[in-house]
Amino acid sequence: MNQPMQVTSKVWRYENGAVRTVEDTIVTEYPITIMLNDQEFATLVCSPEYIEELVIGFLASEGTISSYEDIESIHVVETTGKAHVATRRINKLNELFHSKRYVTSCCGKSRQSFYFYNDARTVKPVPMHGVQVNIEDCFRLMQSMQQSSTIFQDTGGVHNAALCDANGILLARTDIGRHNALDKIYGHCLQHNISLHDKVIVFSGRISSEVLLKVAKIGCGIVLSKSAPTELALRLADELNITTVGFIRNSSLNVYTKPERIIMEAN
Amino acid sequence: MNQPMQVTSKVWRYENGAVRTVEDTIVTEYPITIMLNDQEFATLVCSPEYIEELVIGFLASEGTISSYEDIESIHVVETTGKAHVATRRINKLNELFHSKRYVTSCCGKSRQSFYFYNDARTVKPVPMHGVQVNIEDCFRLMQSMQQSSTIFQDTGGVHNAALCDANGILLARTDIGRHNALDKIYGHCLQHNISLHDKVIVFSGRISSEVLLKVAKIGCGIVLSKSAPTELALRLADELNITTVGFIRNSSLNVYTKPERIIMEAN
Repeated sequence: MNQPMQVTSKVWRYENGAVRTVEDTIVTEYPITIMLNDQEFATLVCSPEYIEELVIGFLASEGTISSYEDIESIHVVETTGKAHVATRRINKLNELFHSKRYVTSCCGKSRQSFYFYNDARTVKPVPMHGVQVNIEDCFRLMQSMQQSSTIFQDTGGVHNAALCDANGILLARTDIGRHNALDKIYGHCLQHNISLHDKVIVFSGRISSEVLLKVAKIGCGIVLSKSAPTELALRLADELNITTVGFIRNSSLNVYTKPERIIMEAN
Repeated sequence: MNQPMQVTSKVWRYENGAVRTVEDTIVTEYPITIMLNDQEFATLVCSPEYIEELVIGFLASEGTISSYEDIESIHVVETTGKAHVATRRINKLNELFHSKRYVTSCCGKSRQSFYFYNDARTVKPVPMHGVQVNIEDCFRLMQSMQQSSTIFQDTGGVHNAALCDANGILLARTDIGRHNALDKIYGHCLQHNISLHDKVIVFSGRISSEVLLKVAKIGCGIVLSKSAPTELALRLADELNITTVGFIRNSSLNVYTKPERIIMEAN
């Protein structure tokens, strides 16, 4: 896609008691309509890069497809802003229950947990064996992700997500939509059949329940964020065996759930 | 609603080279399913306060209702998490075109602008006469909003929106969802028939196209943010006569569109 990720625009800047006009960098938004087997399915407003990955990740995250093999073809047409997807197979049930609510009780505890119906069908707990990282890795991976995103430094208007192992970043994606950045990661993993049991997601935004569910769908056992989690996200993380680490800033961080995957001894 | 806006939870905190467990404050998320005339319409994940306002603002923002009078009754049932809405009248057309894409050319310019179909039906340009504020008002209103939100200071996990006039805050709402905070403002204005031509929206988050469209629907001519706008939002702001001010921090800010409403002389 040849659309720019950012443009420059004239703004009136007030600073030190005076107004002057300056050229400022502004992040773009681009609407993409997914045409699923010739029918309009959804419109996503996104940053205009890695659109194929975004569409694949979104369809998988919605539960509409179960694997990359379910997709027969995908063509993004820039002039119309449409992504034409033909599938070999889709989960018909998901169309019926698209965003229907599904309430389940939480692991025998008395309080109730909540999923959308599609999520309940597609999300499974992540096995507890697999990846471990230490405290220093958490700081290092967060710093790497932030340094890798020049567009954020320019415009302040995007979210970043990265797929990492303990050695460093494997894949970083940027989007004006928090969920889109994660869907781009997910789409890439499905397209390239990337093994996830030893991987970590690093994310610039808050860990809401939706973000946590996306991490579980991708299949990563650890999510690192510089921001705060919500209580519902932590409850889901507990059920789905996901280690959540938040407020990673300078030299402090919080581990909220499943601390077994974080090696806590300081060196 | 008696659900808490935040809870405390045990976290493992790493700081100054050591790990200790502490009680931390975590923001809650609460799913509300809107039952519109006995049919499931949408589920919103939100902070559990001002749910009626949220539901009214959401339905108006979607174009499903045109005014508060379209609603016959609304009952929020806490135990089930459902908001039962009965209407006298709904815009049937909006059901058909719910999230269908609508592309229109932009005020005779050669590039194309984009709305969802429902937005194109419900959004009108805001008259240019009416509210004006000066630079000092921008800083003062932003500071008032931030000081009014104790929950953000506790948890770092929510967005704030406030309805103001040049004298100060009239109404402030907090939510884990950026759009929800604005919908709560919108719902309150509809319920109480608040005149908006002399009002200003102050917002903690980025000004995306969706945020800009909500401001236009509410009917405010000025939006102040401490964060960045997107290029699509600025294009819409230009068409819809909305003054956007961003990056309001300490003693600097940017005016992006319709600067006529900002009195720029420093005193």
